[in-house]
Amino acid sequence: MVILLKQHAPQAEQERLLAWLRELGAEVRVTGTPERPFFCLTGDISRIDPSLAARFPAVEDVLRLTEPYPLCSRRLHPEPTVVSVGGARFGGGNFGLIAGPCAVESEEQIFTAARQAKAAGVCLLRGGAFKPRTSPYDFSGLGAEGLRLLIAAGHETGLPVVSELMSAAQLDAFADVDVIQIGARNMQNYDLLRTLGRSEKPVLLKRGVGATLQELLLSAEYLLAAGNPRVMLCERGIRTFDTFTRGTLDLAAVPALHEMTHLPVLVDPSHAAGRAALVTPLALAAAACGADGVMAEMHPDPLHARCDGAQALLPEELAALSQRLHAVREACR
Amino acid sequence: MVILLKQHAPQAEQERLLAWLRELGAEVRVTGTPERPFFCLTGDISRIDPSLAARFPAVEDVLRLTEPYPLCSRRLHPEPTVVSVGGARFGGGNFGLIAGPCAVESEEQIFTAARQAKAAGVCLLRGGAFKPRTSPYDFSGLGAEGLRLLIAAGHETGLPVVSELMSAAQLDAFADVDVIQIGARNMQNYDLLRTLGRSEKPVLLKRGVGATLQELLLSAEYLLAAGNPRVMLCERGIRTFDTFTRGTLDLAAVPALHEMTHLPVLVDPSHAAGRAALVTPLALAAAACGADGVMAEMHPDPLHARCDGAQALLPEELAALSQRLHAVREACR
Amino acid sequence: MVILLKQHAPQAEQERLLAWLRELGAEVRVTGTPERPFFCLTGDISRIDPSLAARFPAVEDVLRLTEPYPLCSRRLHPEPTVVSVGGARFGGGNFGLIAGPCAVESEEQIFTAARQAKAAGVCLLRGGAFKPRTSPYDFSGLGAEGLRLLIAAGHETGLPVVSELMSAAQLDAFADVDVIQIGARNMQNYDLLRTLGRSEKPVLLKRGVGATLQELLLSAEYLLAAGNPRVMLCERGIRTFDTFTRGTLDLAAVPALHEMTHLPVLVDPSHAAGRAALVTPLALAAAACGADGVMAEMHPDPLHARCDGAQALLPEELAALSQRLHAVREACR
Amino acid sequence: MVILLKQHAPQAEQERLLAWLRELGAEVRVTGTPERPFFCLTGDISRIDPSLAARFPAVEDVLRLTEPYPLCSRRLHPEPTVVSVGGARFGGGNFGLIAGPCAVESEEQIFTAARQAKAAGVCLLRGGAFKPRTSPYDFSGLGAEGLRLLIAAGHETGLPVVSELMSAAQLDAFADVDVIQIGARNMQNYDLLRTLGRSEKPVLLKRGVGATLQELLLSAEYLLAAGNPRVMLCERGIRTFDTFTRGTLDLAAVPALHEMTHLPVLVDPSHAAGRAALVTPLALAAAACGADGVMAEMHPDPLHARCDGAQALLPEELAALSQRLHAVREACR
Repeated sequence: MVILLKQHAPQAEQERLLAWLRELGAEVRVTGTPERPFFCLTGDISRIDPSLAARFPAVEDVLRLTEPYPLCSRRLHPEPTVVSVGGARFGGGNFGLIAGPCAVESEEQIFTAARQAKAAGVCLLRGGAFKPRTSPYDFSGLGAEGLRLLIAAGHETGLPVVSELMSAAQLDAFADVDVIQIGARNMQNYDLLRTLGRSEKPVLLKRGVGATLQELLLSAEYLLAAGNPRVMLCERGIRTFDTFTRGTLDLAAVPALHEMTHLPVLVDPSHAAGRAALVTPLALAAAACGADGVMAEMHPDPLHARCDGAQALLPEELAALSQRLHAVREACR
Repeated sequence: MVILLKQHAPQAEQERLLAWLRELGAEVRVTGTPERPFFCLTGDISRIDPSLAARFPAVEDVLRLTEPYPLCSRRLHPEPTVVSVGGARFGGGNFGLIAGPCAVESEEQIFTAARQAKAAGVCLLRGGAFKPRTSPYDFSGLGAEGLRLLIAAGHETGLPVVSELMSAAQLDAFADVDVIQIGARNMQNYDLLRTLGRSEKPVLLKRGVGATLQELLLSAEYLLAAGNPRVMLCERGIRTFDTFTRGTLDLAAVPALHEMTHLPVLVDPSHAAGRAALVTPLALAAAACGADGVMAEMHPDPLHARCDGAQALLPEELAALSQRLHAVREACR
Repeated sequence: MVILLKQHAPQAEQERLLAWLRELGAEVRVTGTPERPFFCLTGDISRIDPSLAARFPAVEDVLRLTEPYPLCSRRLHPEPTVVSVGGARFGGGNFGLIAGPCAVESEEQIFTAARQAKAAGVCLLRGGAFKPRTSPYDFSGLGAEGLRLLIAAGHETGLPVVSELMSAAQLDAFADVDVIQIGARNMQNYDLLRTLGRSEKPVLLKRGVGATLQELLLSAEYLLAAGNPRVMLCERGIRTFDTFTRGTLDLAAVPALHEMTHLPVLVDPSHAAGRAALVTPLALAAAACGADGVMAEMHPDPLHARCDGAQALLPEELAALSQRLHAVREACR
Repeated sequence: MVILLKQHAPQAEQERLLAWLRELGAEVRVTGTPERPFFCLTGDISRIDPSLAARFPAVEDVLRLTEPYPLCSRRLHPEPTVVSVGGARFGGGNFGLIAGPCAVESEEQIFTAARQAKAAGVCLLRGGAFKPRTSPYDFSGLGAEGLRLLIAAGHETGLPVVSELMSAAQLDAFADVDVIQIGARNMQNYDLLRTLGRSEKPVLLKRGVGATLQELLLSAEYLLAAGNPRVMLCERGIRTFDTFTRGTLDLAAVPALHEMTHLPVLVDPSHAAGRAALVTPLALAAAACGADGVMAEMHPDPLHARCDGAQALLPEELAALSQRLHAVREACR
C-alpha cells in the first residue's frame, strides 16, 4: 500500500497518521520529496483499511498495490486453468457447450432433452432440481427426485451433469452431480462458498446481477482459498437501465476476466436475453470474443415448460447453434 | 390475466393460443370486438407464464392484473403494519433510530457503544457477529461470542438488539437476538427466507444492491407466506453508474413502497454513503420523505474499527443526528 | 390505445374518465364485460397522455398499441434499409468496416492513417475535426482545417469520410463530408436532428450512454420525419455500474434493434472498451451477432495521439481485425 | 501527476516511459526507492493522457493530483457562490423554491399559474417555451410566443423567470428571461455551454441522466472558463435499473457536490419522480439534506396539461409544500 500525502500537509497531521499506521502493525517508509511525501507500507498491513486511511486530513490518495484475489490472479498464475469434467474441458483453448432445460420436470422430459443435447454436440447437461424463484408461488423444482432423474439421463447419454445448489444443507444430495452451479443470487452466499471450497467438485460460479468483476473474483477466491481450484466463472447479464432484455449481457467481461484471472470464463446468453430469438446471436458473440464455453437453455417443448420457456431454444435451434459455434471459433483463431 | 390480440390476427393463430391456454387450465372468455379481441383469463392461471404467452404470434400484449405479492400488498391490506420490539415501534406513524457498530469487536467496544447509543436515544442496538465480507481475507466477525456480547450489552442498557443471520444453520445461536437482519447479499437466499418465515422473530430485510422494489416485496412475501408477518424493509443503496458513493440511496423507494405495501420501510444511509460525512444529511432526508426508521452505523472509535470505520458516525454525531431527526419529523407532519 | 379499468370501478369514476377522454378528442368504445370493462380509443388520440390517464382512480392499466416510431418501425416497413456511401454499403446483408483516428491531428497523420485504413480493407474513413470533450481544457480538434485534411486524405485513397457534427451552425463546413456523425452526447440535440433531417447526407446516429433503444429510435424518427431516410444507428456502450470498461457494450441491442427497425445497426467497440486490448474481441462479437458494420479507432502512432490514444488500434491490429471480421461473418451465415 | 512504477520494472521500460513523458513536455523527478520508484511530473503536463501512460508495461498506476475543474473546485474557492436573481437568492445558506408549469400553454394558463406560484411563496417562475421532446410528434412548446407570455406573467406577479434554451441560435429570444436553463439532454452540448459562458445571465445547469458528478462539474467548468460565474447545478434523477420512477433521484449528490464545489446545488424532484404523489416527499428530502433550492412542476389543471401532467402538483399541493419546506429547513439548522 502507498499513501500519498497532500502537498504541504502539516507535520502534526502527518505524525498522527504515522502513529495510527504503526499502531495497526504497518512498517512505514517515508519517501518522495519534502513537498510531496509518500508513505510506503510494508510488513503486516492486513489491519489497515484504505478507506479509513483516506479519512485522515493529510491524505491525498491511497493505493492498494496488490490485487485482493491472489489465488485467482493471472499476474501471479499466468497459465490458464483447464477444468475437466468427464470428456468435457473448459479453458486454455478448450471450449464446451452446456445445454439442457431450465428445470427437470419429468423423466420423459429430461431423457428426451438429454438425447437431443447429446445429438447436438453438447458436452455437459444442465437441469435445475432446486430452483431459486423470485416468487414464493412459482414452481421451484422437483428437488432430490429431480437430481436423480438428471443423473440417470446423464448416465444414459454419457453426459456429465450440472445443477444448481442453493444451500449447504443440500450438498449430500449432489454426490453424483458432476458440476455444481452457484447461481447469480448466491454469488455472495459465503456459507455456500466455504462449503463448496472444501469439496472436490468443479464449481460453475455465476456473476450476480449487481456484482462487479472484482466481486466475482473475490467470491471465486473464497472457493480457491478453501482448497477447491476447479472453478469456472459465468457471465449471465447484469442489471442496467436497459430493460428490453432481462439483463444486459456484458461481453467485455470475457476478455477483461481473461486478463485478470486464469480461470475459465463461460457465458450464459439465455438468462441475459430472456427471449429465445436473442440467444443464438449472443451465444455466437460470446464465442467470438473468446469465451471458454456457452451455457444455453433448451427444452423439447418450450410452450409447455414449467419455467423460463420464453428463453428456451428448440432442439433443432440448439443443434444449429452448436455447428455455428464451432465455425465461429475456427474463424477467430 | 388479460391477453390482447393483434389486430387482424389470423383465426388459426387465435385458435392455437386458445387451445394452449385451455390445456394449461385457464378458463378463457373472448371479449372486445372482432377487429380487436381480448382474452380474459379466469380459473386456475398459475401455469400460464405471461412471457411464454407473448411468444405466440397472435399476441399483442399480456397483462397481469394482480400484484404478485398478495400478502405484502397495500391494496389488499390497507392498514399499515406496526412492528414492535421491546419498547421500539416501527411503522404506522412510529419511527425508530437503530444504531451501533458494524461489527462487535470486544466486550469493551460493544458495551461502550451500547451506552452511547442509549444516551443518544437509539431504540434498537445493532452489531454484526457473523459478517459477510466481500473478501475471504477480511475480518468476518466474532461469531457466536459476538452475539453473546451484543445481547449482554443490550441487557445492560435495556436495548433490544438486531444482528445479521447468514445461514439457516446458525439460527439456534440467534435465540436471544430480538430482530434478525437479512443482508443485501442474502435478499434472495430462499433457504434463509423460508427458515425465518417459520420463526416468530421480527425480520429486517435489506434490499439487494441490484434488486427492484418488486423483487424486494417478493422476498418479503416468502416470509409472510411461511407465516411470519413481522417484516421490516430496508433501503440501503443500489448499484448505479454513480460510484462516488458506495451505493446510490434510492429515497423514492420510501414513498413508493408505502404505496405498494403495508410493511414498515427503513433506510440505512451508512452503507449507501460509505463515508461518515454523508450519513447525517441522508438520514435527515430519509426522515423527511417518510421513512419509518433509520439504521446508522456508529463506533466509539472509528479509526480503530475493524470493519467499515470510514462510514461510522462518532457518538456525538449520532446524538446530534438523533435530535435533528426528531425535529425533521415534527416539521414534516 | 386501450384503457383497462379496475374491477368494480365505481360508475361515477368511469364517467369522469370517459368525459375527459372525449373532451380531448378521442372516440371511446366501451367493451369487455360489466365486471371488467375496457375502453378502446380511436380517432385522434394525440392529446391523450397515457401516464396522465393512469392517474384516474378507475384505471388499472393503459396500453399503447402502436410503436411511437412509425417511420423507423420494422413492423410497418419489413424490408431492411441499405445505406450506400461511395462503394460502401451498410444493412440488408452488407457489412462495412469504418476506421481512422479519433481526431485529425495533422496532414501527415491523417494521410498516413488513410493509407493504412485503405490497405486494411476499410470502406469509410473516420476522423474528428470538431471534437466534443468532457473538459473545456482538452484538445477539441482542428475544426474546419481538420475537415479539409480529412476530405483530402479520403480523396487520395478513394475512401468516403465520416466526421462528427456538433452544431447546426457548422453544417456548411461539412458540404464535402460523406457521412455525418451525431455523437452520443448529442443524440437528443433536437435542433441538430431537425437540421440533418432536412439534409440529404447519410447520418450515423450514436446511442447516448443513458439512452434506451426506444429513445434511440425516436431520435432517428426525428431524422426520418424531417425527410432524411439515410440513417444508421450505432451502439457504443452504455453507462452501468461496471466501470472497468469505459462503457458497457450492449450487444443484445444489435438483434433487438433488427427486430424493431429496418435501419442498419453498427457497433463502435472502441469507445465502449476504452482500451485497445478489448477492441478486437468486441468487434468480432459484434460481427457474430449480426451488426451491419463496425467502427474502430486506429492511429498510426497511438502513444502520440492527442485524443483517446489508449483505445486506438495499431495499423497492423486493424488489418488483422479486418480479416478476422470477414471470417466470422462467413462462419455466421 | 504521479506515476507509480511496478516493482522491479525493467530499466529499459522505465527509460522508454521517461523519454515519452519528456518528449511530451513534462518535467519528471524520479523519487521513491529503487524497488518502488515513482515519477513525479511537473511543468506542462497538459499533453500527458493518464490512460495512455497506463498502457506502458512499467506502469502500476497513474494519479491525477488536481481536480480537473479548477474554477468550480471548492478546495480552491472555499466560499460558497450565491446566485441572486431579482429578490431570489440561491446558495450560501439561501434557499429558493422554483415552480411553474412544464410548458407555457396559453396566456390564461401561465398567468393563473404565476399568481398561484406567487401566492405559494415561489421565488422564481418556471415555464417551458422551447421544449425538448423525446418524440418528434409531441407538443414542443409555443416557442418565442411562449417566452413572451412567460415574461409578461413574471412582470405582473413580480417574479423573475427561468426557461430552457435548446440552441445557441435562439439566444436572442431569451433577452428578457432572467435565468437560462440547460436541460439534462444538453448538459454536454458544448456549443450551447460556450455561448452561455459568454453571457451574463445566471444558468441553471441540469445533470444529464447518464452523467457522473465530475462530468456535471466539467460542464459547469465550460461556463466558468468562458467567463460566466453565475451557475447553479441541478440534480434531477439518473438512469438506473430502477424503473418504477422516471429517474432515480440521487440525493447524495447534494452533500457530495457541496464538498466538491462552491456552486449552489438545486434539486428537481418532478422529473425524477414522474408522478405527482412522490414529488412532495422527495422535495422535503432534498431540503433536509441541504439543497439550495427545489424546482417543482405545478399546473393549474394537470388533467389538461399538454406536457408532463402526471407529475404536476396542484396549486394547493404546491402551497402546502412551500410551508413544509420552510419548516424542514428550520429543523435542519
